[in-house]
Amino acid sequence: LDTEKQPIFIKTVVQYMHPLFSSIRLDKAQSQPVYLQLTTHLSSLIKEGQLVTGSRLPSTRQMAELLGLHRKTVVRSYDELLAQGWLESRQGCGTFAAGHIPRLKIKSFSPKHQQSEALHTAGFIFDRMAHLDRKVVNPALSLHLDDGYPDARLAPLTELSRAYRTQLLTGDSYQKLGYANAQGSLWLREELARHLNDTRGLNITAEHVLITRGSTMGLFLACTAFVRPGDQVIVGSPGWLGAEANFIQAGASLIRISVDENGVQIDELEEICKKKTVRMVYVTPHHHHPTTVGLRSDRRLKLLQLSEKYGFIIFEDDYDYDFHYQSKPLLPLISADQSGMVLYCGSFTKTISPAFRVGYLVAPTNVIQQLTKLRRVVDRQGDSMLENAIAELLQSGVIQRYMRKSVRVYRERRDALSQLLKSELGDYLNFQIPDGGMAIWANFTNDIVLPALADKAYTRGLQISDGLIYNSPLCTHNAIRLGFASSTVSEIAGAVEIMRHLIKK
Amino acid sequence: LDTEKQPIFIKTVVQYMHPLFSSIRLDKAQSQPVYLQLTTHLSSLIKEGQLVTGSRLPSTRQMAELLGLHRKTVVRSYDELLAQGWLESRQGCGTFAAGHIPRLKIKSFSPKHQQSEALHTAGFIFDRMAHLDRKVVNPALSLHLDDGYPDARLAPLTELSRAYRTQLLTGDSYQKLGYANAQGSLWLREELARHLNDTRGLNITAEHVLITRGSTMGLFLACTAFVRPGDQVIVGSPGWLGAEANFIQAGASLIRISVDENGVQIDELEEICKKKTVRMVYVTPHHHHPTTVGLRSDRRLKLLQLSEKYGFIIFEDDYDYDFHYQSKPLLPLISADQSGMVLYCGSFTKTISPAFRVGYLVAPTNVIQQLTKLRRVVDRQGDSMLENAIAELLQSGVIQRYMRKSVRVYRERRDALSQLLKSELGDYLNFQIPDGGMAIWANFTNDIVLPALADKAYTRGLQISDGLIYNSPLCTHNAIRLGFASSTVSEIAGAVEIMRHLIKK
Repeated sequence: LDTEKQPIFIKTVVQYMHPLFSSIRLDKAQSQPVYLQLTTHLSSLIKEGQLVTGSRLPSTRQMAELLGLHRKTVVRSYDELLAQGWLESRQGCGTFAAGHIPRLKIKSFSPKHQQSEALHTAGFIFDRMAHLDRKVVNPALSLHLDDGYPDARLAPLTELSRAYRTQLLTGDSYQKLGYANAQGSLWLREELARHLNDTRGLNITAEHVLITRGSTMGLFLACTAFVRPGDQVIVGSPGWLGAEANFIQAGASLIRISVDENGVQIDELEEICKKKTVRMVYVTPHHHHPTTVGLRSDRRLKLLQLSEKYGFIIFEDDYDYDFHYQSKPLLPLISADQSGMVLYCGSFTKTISPAFRVGYLVAPTNVIQQLTKLRRVVDRQGDSMLENAIAELLQSGVIQRYMRKSVRVYRERRDALSQLLKSELGDYLNFQIPDGGMAIWANFTNDIVLPALADKAYTRGLQISDGLIYNSPLCTHNAIRLGFASSTVSEIAGAVEIMRHLIKK
Repeated sequence: LDTEKQPIFIKTVVQYMHPLFSSIRLDKAQSQPVYLQLTTHLSSLIKEGQLVTGSRLPSTRQMAELLGLHRKTVVRSYDELLAQGWLESRQGCGTFAAGHIPRLKIKSFSPKHQQSEALHTAGFIFDRMAHLDRKVVNPALSLHLDDGYPDARLAPLTELSRAYRTQLLTGDSYQKLGYANAQGSLWLREELARHLNDTRGLNITAEHVLITRGSTMGLFLACTAFVRPGDQVIVGSPGWLGAEANFIQAGASLIRISVDENGVQIDELEEICKKKTVRMVYVTPHHHHPTTVGLRSDRRLKLLQLSEKYGFIIFEDDYDYDFHYQSKPLLPLISADQSGMVLYCGSFTKTISPAFRVGYLVAPTNVIQQLTKLRRVVDRQGDSMLENAIAELLQSGVIQRYMRKSVRVYRERRDALSQLLKSELGDYLNFQIPDGGMAIWANFTNDIVLPALADKAYTRGLQISDGLIYNSPLCTHNAIRLGFASSTVSEIAGAVEIMRHLIKK
């Protein structure tokens, strides 16, 4: 910088400019370094046109004096501004505000709470999302009867952590940590195909599997690929709001059909098919969410028959197939699908824990190929280290052993919760003991106001649902899901005791 | 099971049914257990109507004899079919095909290569994706000059693995491994806000940040939320095909503008704005992909000015900001955005490695809130363990130290590749030495056929691009990106030697 050479002229400029620069406020306590703060201030003056383009700046020494800074700080800032093109240095003449800068009209700009006026109209269209955003779990609360989550305390986390570490640290890092197949780890797809063939009566290979980030992404990909705005999509009511959110976001026209003790009413579906073109039917045949009922075998076959006749897609969300405590469960719909209309979706969310966003879609190969291309634009690929780590635990049988253990433990917890609800609260609620899954669907008598109960329980250290997310335009319930899997028997006893105390008081 | 009680009657039935059951083929070598194979066969016979509903089945003993199986296997299969509702047991009378089963017309079904006829018309619409699917890296090849990826061998993988393990194994697993905020780890958002404020002249908080799975998801969320079918979207040409894929998938009408040595031609953009409503402009101002040029400061201000005047969104993809080797880089566009029209996107893909799908969007708070809701239906939430692990390494400065180290190493590699390309291949290609990023944009003379060169190099163990993905309808090049960051100086020398040998031969 050569600005030091004309001290007299500079002095004049500094005096003239003084009010402009002395308005600069720098704060050493900020996380942003002072030289960058100065850089921002000076570039703003140029942008706003207060520091006219072509005008000479004070020397670094003068500026340092003016602002009470070390000269090095100012030099660093000027260098930055020169590099960024805000300033120009002319040999022997000093430093100038650059000549090619157009002016910007300045607005009041408070980045901390900045709201973009221009962008507020577009965006997300699902306004019932607020219900989903309600906190289900609060760290300060020690007890919970949740929507039906697994108990990560039982999960093979040490083995998983070890397997993840192996994936991360061994082998050719360029290969292992580079871009990967958007369809997901081949190893995991092969292990999953074997596991699903063994447990669900399928006859598939890795080609029929797309690894997703939980069943949410499976649903999202299916909606994006197959549901166009205005398409008719059938859901059971009550049903899972998370699925509805995805259909509504895709622009679907939702049609709700009733759910009874044998699952969704397929006769209602048939009547709708006679009048309208149905694009997709969303079902959770193993345990309908939230009511936990299974879809009876005759309805399953009728559903497949209707799909073939009317050409609609069946989205089979089989999120908790691995958890059944009585008889062997019915095989999933896809095991009997003859015409390739079933998209089958599963997840490790309920097997290990929600934080592990690893799930899968099973479908005919041409569908998987299309969905893989779509997945590529969504997030490019999954977490290959985690996918391979889970593959290793499937291959070595660690996950299968863990699942057998959790089925045994969850059965005890289900029985404990059932008995306590009956003995302690039998006059205030009724329920069917579910033959699987992780929650009891508890119908309360009408004198119990669930949002008030949830609020009071919250203050006592127990988190339960207020029931709002289980209501739909078609039906309201005075019911909530009481998850038993993630609490020990004594935690369950503590939770029921709090409910009993609040209800009987 | 009581079917044993009427041996004579059963015998008759068995004889009558014999052809039906003797067609059953069971294979002990299959991974599926024999009892499940039998279950599938019998349920198929019922579904197909060959085993008429209401008809009595052979006893387990008879069936075992007929098929040469252990009786326990048959008992297990019958139990399964009873549980699934295919069979009914009538006290004292035996086991019958259940009465409420509707018939399904059977189709030839070869699941191994099953193609769904009904579903093939919907799905993914971007047909140039094939170019992206071309393998960039082959495990068998030892050398590569790629599109510009980082060198994971330099990355702090041990520290990352340790931090991940801590996240996974310590603390309250119900909290840490449960459902989390779809906006991403608060810890990471706070550390990122600090890091971006320090390095990019921003003044943001965690509220302005949404953690994404790489910049791909940032782009996908922005497209889904803001681009409607038919909307005009501007991209530079040549440009990044991955971004085009996302816009095309969203139904955008793409308009390509030229790119010269100072970045995209903003004057062309202005002419378009005068005639059409532009919804979004996609730019990579720091280093335009693929040509590596920076957007000059006057064009940056003009772009912001036009955005304000014409109301279009600027999507600023700043994928490689941390890698510059000469002067300090220009601050990103968003640092000068006055009207909240810039969506700023960054990623750890180029910082650590592509396998770590952690990136971020910075935008006004109302936009972040909307995009967070949208992200929730896409895949519910990110990987909170990994996000927290990266937060820890940002907080402790491990990532910053690693970035400084890689900038130093990559600069050496850039210089080595530049010198070798000039000395060994100077007659066959020309290029500008990029002041940052991870690749050189090399323009070959017209006598060199790049796809042929890439093929020949491949057989010699060197992977380079064939250049097809860099062409667009507006312009074709005889140029490819030669990434220098992921290869050591001696690997680079080996790669150039192979190219020299092939080209000069």
